[in-house]
Amino acid sequence: MQFGMFGSAQARRGGPSDDSGAGFRDFVERNVEAEALGYHSTFLVEHHFTGFGQVSATLNLLTWIGARTTTLRLGTAVLVLPWHNPVLLAEQIATLDLLSEGRVDAGIGKGYRLREFDGFAISIEEADARFQECLEVMTKAWTSDAPWSHQGTYWKFDDVVVEPPSVQQPHPQLWMGAGSPASIKQVAALGFNMLLGQFDSFDKINEEIALFKSEVESRGRTFDPMSVAVARSVNILDSESEYEQALETRMAGRRRTQQLARRPNFQDTREAAELGTIYGSPDDVSAKLQDLRDIGVEYVLLNCPAGITTLRRFAKDVMPAFISGPKAAASPAHDAQLP
Amino acid sequence: MQFGMFGSAQARRGGPSDDSGAGFRDFVERNVEAEALGYHSTFLVEHHFTGFGQVSATLNLLTWIGARTTTLRLGTAVLVLPWHNPVLLAEQIATLDLLSEGRVDAGIGKGYRLREFDGFAISIEEADARFQECLEVMTKAWTSDAPWSHQGTYWKFDDVVVEPPSVQQPHPQLWMGAGSPASIKQVAALGFNMLLGQFDSFDKINEEIALFKSEVESRGRTFDPMSVAVARSVNILDSESEYEQALETRMAGRRRTQQLARRPNFQDTREAAELGTIYGSPDDVSAKLQDLRDIGVEYVLLNCPAGITTLRRFAKDVMPAFISGPKAAASPAHDAQLP
Repeated sequence: MQFGMFGSAQARRGGPSDDSGAGFRDFVERNVEAEALGYHSTFLVEHHFTGFGQVSATLNLLTWIGARTTTLRLGTAVLVLPWHNPVLLAEQIATLDLLSEGRVDAGIGKGYRLREFDGFAISIEEADARFQECLEVMTKAWTSDAPWSHQGTYWKFDDVVVEPPSVQQPHPQLWMGAGSPASIKQVAALGFNMLLGQFDSFDKINEEIALFKSEVESRGRTFDPMSVAVARSVNILDSESEYEQALETRMAGRRRTQQLARRPNFQDTREAAELGTIYGSPDDVSAKLQDLRDIGVEYVLLNCPAGITTLRRFAKDVMPAFISGPKAAASPAHDAQLP
Repeated sequence: MQFGMFGSAQARRGGPSDDSGAGFRDFVERNVEAEALGYHSTFLVEHHFTGFGQVSATLNLLTWIGARTTTLRLGTAVLVLPWHNPVLLAEQIATLDLLSEGRVDAGIGKGYRLREFDGFAISIEEADARFQECLEVMTKAWTSDAPWSHQGTYWKFDDVVVEPPSVQQPHPQLWMGAGSPASIKQVAALGFNMLLGQFDSFDKINEEIALFKSEVESRGRTFDPMSVAVARSVNILDSESEYEQALETRMAGRRRTQQLARRPNFQDTREAAELGTIYGSPDDVSAKLQDLRDIGVEYVLLNCPAGITTLRRFAKDVMPAFISGPKAAASPAHDAQLP
């Protein structure tokens, strides 16, 4: 297995006495240490107008992290294409890919938070069409050495060659979130990697990976288990009361982001929160991770409310049993940790 | 006096065997070394579709440089506002300002290259209006802690608070290019710093600084000589033949960029090229620099075709006599270098 990180730094607006940069600086240092601890990647969100300081200029923060690291994959989860000029975005992603010598994992999406679309005065009804057009233009921008033009619904470009090129060819590695059979089929058809959300249950993930694998293989390609990354909220906890508190915090956080989104199937229950989280002692966490692995998950992105504390304990007490070989269940190190 | 850098890295598109990232990596290393040599700032251009690989995602390259440096001011010369979503641009600039702890010098402009406007399918006739609207929205984005809306000609935003805030207050330091009395008055009225172009003659610079100073003082503010930065092409050369070759290269370069621009008063003469450059031996360069200082220039941005080689020699053989005190002509170190 391999492990990355998923989440956001925070920089609130505040009075002049507030150090709004502290959240960003802590996040950068966390990523630098995480690379040394053996984490494979970091995936950052893009959000706007939240009022609680989520990362908005995702590629810029990621670029700073890129300059401070050497192997860490630099991911987005996800860049919301409907809000971006596709040529400027292609240039920004390619620039980071060049500077980082090919470490970009560009997760892209359509957006889901109504408040953000309203803020940009863009209809959420146009999200699909804008996503498709932006992706089409970005792909042309990355792959064309000869001048091209584009006359679309939302964007026009005339006789351009876009610079710089990317290191990864034909373009930086692309990832897409997927939440329905139709979108999973689309990701497979496009040849991208797949991000599975932190709110999906184990049963749903099982079905999603099976469908993606069969769609990839039906196209004559080999399925790579590392082409699917599953985000999970992870907390290593030492007591029942810590567990209860962490779950409460998790549910409050979900309610807060739900107010900014419009998820029709949102389940505000303790059961849903427990299904989507990996909380508990190192042994509990290892057991849940093994459950994930048993349904075909080989790449997990950790969202850690406790930040570096969890990342350190996970790297020390959980990760070693899972990073060796394709099926850690067979390894003595892992067996030793099972209850 | 103080000294910064002005220019662009290059990353061409090429075949798979080309290392397009080498130009970026060299540029980053040059900036890291320049900081150690005593340079105060770096100002990067923004250009698109040039076919010779000028920097397009300016803030992203600048962010990487920011992470590798600690005191170097991180400048743009200039971000062309008509091509950018003002909220996304404000977020990107503020993010870099936070990460760099307030080192951003955001040079902004209207653009002048017709080919770039054509590429973006934006009329160059709209440059002024788009610049004004983008600046208005960015300023709101940086300075408003309460929700605001904007219904403009080119952009609409509804009920938003833009995050993150910047470190510099009320917003990151802004710079504007100015090439006419009207634009100089505008920069003074806005309270921004002023960038003077590398093609202006000494006589013109003299008039421009005098006008800017009187406009600033007529508004009851104190004129700071460091609020005007003058870009110059600088080459330290050891022979007449090197001088001739450097001037030829300079004129060829000017013709190339002229084809992408539309400068009505472009003068393709040897005299114009000599007036706008500081080429020669360390003594020649020091003498020309003293001429600039005598007309009130205290902040020079070096554009160095020979890159780090010039930056090193300038730092060693020219800079020391000029960085001490307000009038280096009175210092023994400088007197010793005069012919």
